Amino acid sequence: MATPTDFSRLAKLGALIRHYILTATTNAGSGHPTSSLSAVELMVALLFGGRFRYDPERPHFPNNDRLIFSKGHATPLFYALWVAAGKLTGEYLEANYRKFGSPLEGHPTVSFPYVEAATGSLGQGLSVGLGLALNARRLDKLPYRTYVLLGDSEMAEGSVWEALELAAHYQLDNLVGIVDINRLGQRGETMYGWDIQSYVNRISAFGWEAIPVDGHSLPEVLAAYDKALTVQGKPTMILAKTIKGKGVSFIEDQNGWHGKTLSREECDRALQELGEVDLTVRGELARPEELTPEPAGPVPLAAFDYDPKTRVATRKAYGNALARLGPVNPAIVSLDGEVSNSTMAEIFARACPERFFEMYIAEQNMADVALGLATRGKIPFASTFAAFWTRAFDQIRMAQYSEPNLKFVGSHAGVSIGWDGPSQMGLEDLAMFRTLGGSVVLYPADAVATERLVEEMVKHKGIAYMRTTREATPILYGPADQFQIGGCKVLRHSQQDRATVVSAGITLFEALAAYEALQKMGIAIRVIDLYSLKPIAAATLMDAAQRTGAVITVEDHYPEGGLGEAVLSALAQAAVPVHSLAVTKKPKSGSPEELLNYEDISRGAIVKKVREVLGL
Amino acid sequence: MATPTDFSRLAKLGALIRHYILTATTNAGSGHPTSSLSAVELMVALLFGGRFRYDPERPHFPNNDRLIFSKGHATPLFYALWVAAGKLTGEYLEANYRKFGSPLEGHPTVSFPYVEAATGSLGQGLSVGLGLALNARRLDKLPYRTYVLLGDSEMAEGSVWEALELAAHYQLDNLVGIVDINRLGQRGETMYGWDIQSYVNRISAFGWEAIPVDGHSLPEVLAAYDKALTVQGKPTMILAKTIKGKGVSFIEDQNGWHGKTLSREECDRALQELGEVDLTVRGELARPEELTPEPAGPVPLAAFDYDPKTRVATRKAYGNALARLGPVNPAIVSLDGEVSNSTMAEIFARACPERFFEMYIAEQNMADVALGLATRGKIPFASTFAAFWTRAFDQIRMAQYSEPNLKFVGSHAGVSIGWDGPSQMGLEDLAMFRTLGGSVVLYPADAVATERLVEEMVKHKGIAYMRTTREATPILYGPADQFQIGGCKVLRHSQQDRATVVSAGITLFEALAAYEALQKMGIAIRVIDLYSLKPIAAATLMDAAQRTGAVITVEDHYPEGGLGEAVLSALAQAAVPVHSLAVTKKPKSGSPEELLNYEDISRGAIVKKVREVLGL
Repeated sequence: MATPTDFSRLAKLGALIRHYILTATTNAGSGHPTSSLSAVELMVALLFGGRFRYDPERPHFPNNDRLIFSKGHATPLFYALWVAAGKLTGEYLEANYRKFGSPLEGHPTVSFPYVEAATGSLGQGLSVGLGLALNARRLDKLPYRTYVLLGDSEMAEGSVWEALELAAHYQLDNLVGIVDINRLGQRGETMYGWDIQSYVNRISAFGWEAIPVDGHSLPEVLAAYDKALTVQGKPTMILAKTIKGKGVSFIEDQNGWHGKTLSREECDRALQELGEVDLTVRGELARPEELTPEPAGPVPLAAFDYDPKTRVATRKAYGNALARLGPVNPAIVSLDGEVSNSTMAEIFARACPERFFEMYIAEQNMADVALGLATRGKIPFASTFAAFWTRAFDQIRMAQYSEPNLKFVGSHAGVSIGWDGPSQMGLEDLAMFRTLGGSVVLYPADAVATERLVEEMVKHKGIAYMRTTREATPILYGPADQFQIGGCKVLRHSQQDRATVVSAGITLFEALAAYEALQKMGIAIRVIDLYSLKPIAAATLMDAAQRTGAVITVEDHYPEGGLGEAVLSALAQAAVPVHSLAVTKKPKSGSPEELLNYEDISRGAIVKKVREVLGL
Repeated sequence: MATPTDFSRLAKLGALIRHYILTATTNAGSGHPTSSLSAVELMVALLFGGRFRYDPERPHFPNNDRLIFSKGHATPLFYALWVAAGKLTGEYLEANYRKFGSPLEGHPTVSFPYVEAATGSLGQGLSVGLGLALNARRLDKLPYRTYVLLGDSEMAEGSVWEALELAAHYQLDNLVGIVDINRLGQRGETMYGWDIQSYVNRISAFGWEAIPVDGHSLPEVLAAYDKALTVQGKPTMILAKTIKGKGVSFIEDQNGWHGKTLSREECDRALQELGEVDLTVRGELARPEELTPEPAGPVPLAAFDYDPKTRVATRKAYGNALARLGPVNPAIVSLDGEVSNSTMAEIFARACPERFFEMYIAEQNMADVALGLATRGKIPFASTFAAFWTRAFDQIRMAQYSEPNLKFVGSHAGVSIGWDGPSQMGLEDLAMFRTLGGSVVLYPADAVATERLVEEMVKHKGIAYMRTTREATPILYGPADQFQIGGCKVLRHSQQDRATVVSAGITLFEALAAYEALQKMGIAIRVIDLYSLKPIAAATLMDAAQRTGAVITVEDHYPEGGLGEAVLSALAQAAVPVHSLAVTKKPKSGSPEELLNYEDISRGAIVKKVREVLGL
């Protein structure tokens, strides 16, 4: 139990934090003071009330408790907490908040060492926290706890409810959410205002322990954290009724003060209201137990073997590869959106069941759970249909700002999936994953390339995407062939080549068939397997373009942002014409062959285009 | 009350529908018979039990009740219902299901006239239905009702919970959802299995009337529809316990039968189990009341006036334009994701409050509500930060297959938003919206261009996206300047131009400043405002490229899929080098000027690049 002395100390820390929230935002001239002020007691009680176990000298220590600010705009509070913890001076915060080049960015990014994952696009933090909690319970088997501070406005995001249902499904009683219900969103009242019971009802119905509290009462808040420790078999959500702008009378619970800073004069008035603040007081964080995960013993990597006369879908080779690599590298985990029998993640699930997590049809949450696992040193491979990764584009976009080691796999790419029709066809996935800063985008054509490129994905540290194909395709490569991120394969070439056809994945086989047909007509072309779209083998492409004088790109993807534009960018300064064959008509149901023909990305279309380009 | 005769007739219709579900999928060799069989009674009771009022001769009649198959894979059931309604022969369904060129696609698209909106990516139909119900209640003021059939697996999607909260918020008692709880997903049991009470608890907590039923009991199902008619002030969800594969003993409630068809021999066995089926029986749909929305009187279009000496943010001009156009065109509606004071949709909200809908921070639902409104002839403008449209990429992607008249607006584009940092910066929105088939992508630089282009968006029938800027920018154009979709403006040109700088939006002003600086150095460049990225003014770009010999693109966006690659595609066959300036370093907090400099997309960077290209 906390003593009166403890409460007095926590109140002093709260006053210090309020002070710096106000001064830092007024100095910066931008930021969210009111959204920070509402959660001061919630965070002071957690961090300095002895509940949060964290070694500030070792932010990456595996058994630290974890704290995610899902309401990322509350950075003034977050940074001020670290002032209170003695890891940052108040003066530094006041001088550097939101300044160019400073680690104290407007929304949390990993440039500040105490940030677990970048946030700021709302509704994502709980899923990241779920990943952290899942890691503690099922992978590292450590007793650390994960806390996530949420805003009430972001409870409107469906992704939050995905996280709620999955965390309950996995019975993660090591996960505690705290909703700062300050009633006001950016432009007015939230859907539920201060109707705390509505939150309690909804969250209880999702299988969580829901604890309503007065978010400004330190005893109530501390009691809630203590109660959370006793809850078994389900996660806990603390539903805190709070006041936006709390502590500054003229902005408390006022609309029109979201994301708005006080003028210098208003700030002075506000500081006066805080009264005497002891700027020297500092809080203590409890320390974690000295526990680290058990290391695993070494296991040799098995070889693979595909009969060159068979056809194997790259999605299947993906599953095979991951199952082969899983025993070797205990950091590899797999998550799938209830389609593991299509993405073939089920092959890994059978090989390493303890490292496979069914994420159901909730792709947004899946992406952020994977991010959470990545922040704890895992190498998550998250898979669903390529089309359905569009569901999680915001999470994927945000993930890059956490600089994670994170792998995405999208199956059922392109019109060649056939009869299911356009809703199931990934036709914009290459464009989407190419936009990510520093991303790797791979699109193997055969099983061997897939196996090798999954190996490369494991070795590479960063965000990588692999696109796989539904249909079984011929075996093109042998076990000795080498593949690398940023590489390509020149499959057909001669001194007489009059054009270069660049393709990848399923249409590569169309290009090879077109090569044969053109050979018979006496027309030589170069054929390149561009299995790595990003980074791209610019020098090889440039050489081929210049030697052959014309480039034709072929892809089972919309033209924008895909393989064609990737090649155009690589050849932007070459004075060589580039012709793009891509999916340009509204796709429909049909056989793969019918659809490749319909979209003019078939062997026939390539032959026709080559002849047209050559003026034949 | 239904009589025993009615039940017997409905049972006969159910048998007929089961027959065609089986034969059509076995003929096609693909499809989802088991997921269709579980919902037969639910749909037969609705359509042919006298509850659903629909004129099959006039699918677009404004007062028809609406039915959305959110579980889009149940097309065998959907099409068989229209066989039962006499609008399609059974033979046609058997011969054409999933065939190339047939309207009977694997998942519903608008090529079949009774489809309101394309579905197949799960978890989207309820939001579309919400749009339809909102239209009935608040816009067309018609008594039609909207029904949405959902699968139980898709209840895991957060977007469903967004729709649930918003439909309750808008008190839409004209909306009825039906969840076909057949327990089995694609690869195993769902999170909740047959725990119907869990569904009841969660959905009730979200403010809906929840009615559990035995989904194969026609009396229970009919009673539930009747009860839904009596519920006031909130929507109703019927939670139907069903059996996947119902009616065929050897596939009932069996795992491994998702998306799998019966062999010819299995199909024969299954048909035998159905017993004698009267393939001539047909059902009657109740007819709607002859009501149509009230037409509005004509209102003249007001002019706008911007002082050429002021600076105005294009986001503000967007709000002004929509408020100016709203009174003229009663089809215009605005939806916003709780940031209307940032996107400036609030200006429209003040002008036409009855046509503004607050959608809170739930972008996925917002996109599909907008789609639902578009299917009823409205012209929805949906707005949020450009970055947050990534949240709804799957919904946006799917929307194209409904061929809607739908407008998206994204504010706060690029690093030039400044201090808030990367989480709030739209840096992939152009790439995302460019991928959509037939989309229009606009990026005006000043208030005048914005006003004119919003006018063009209203005139254009289709999907259009406008990107707006946070910062106030100078007025560049006069009221007489013309803008068109697919156009551009050559702002600076001379016979001496040695390079062409192509830009749009905020960096256009950097290009103009670079022009001035280069002029002083005696270097003439052409400057093009590429306000329409798609369609793109290819001829003008080609002409400029060839006359000036070099092209430099400048954009406040990641390089992939943005303005640079759009220009590269337009110039793919020009033998002119193209140089791209875009956001290539990880963005951070800072002032707009600092960030434009940091990313080398500022006036200084353009001057430097032009000189480098010219070898100076």
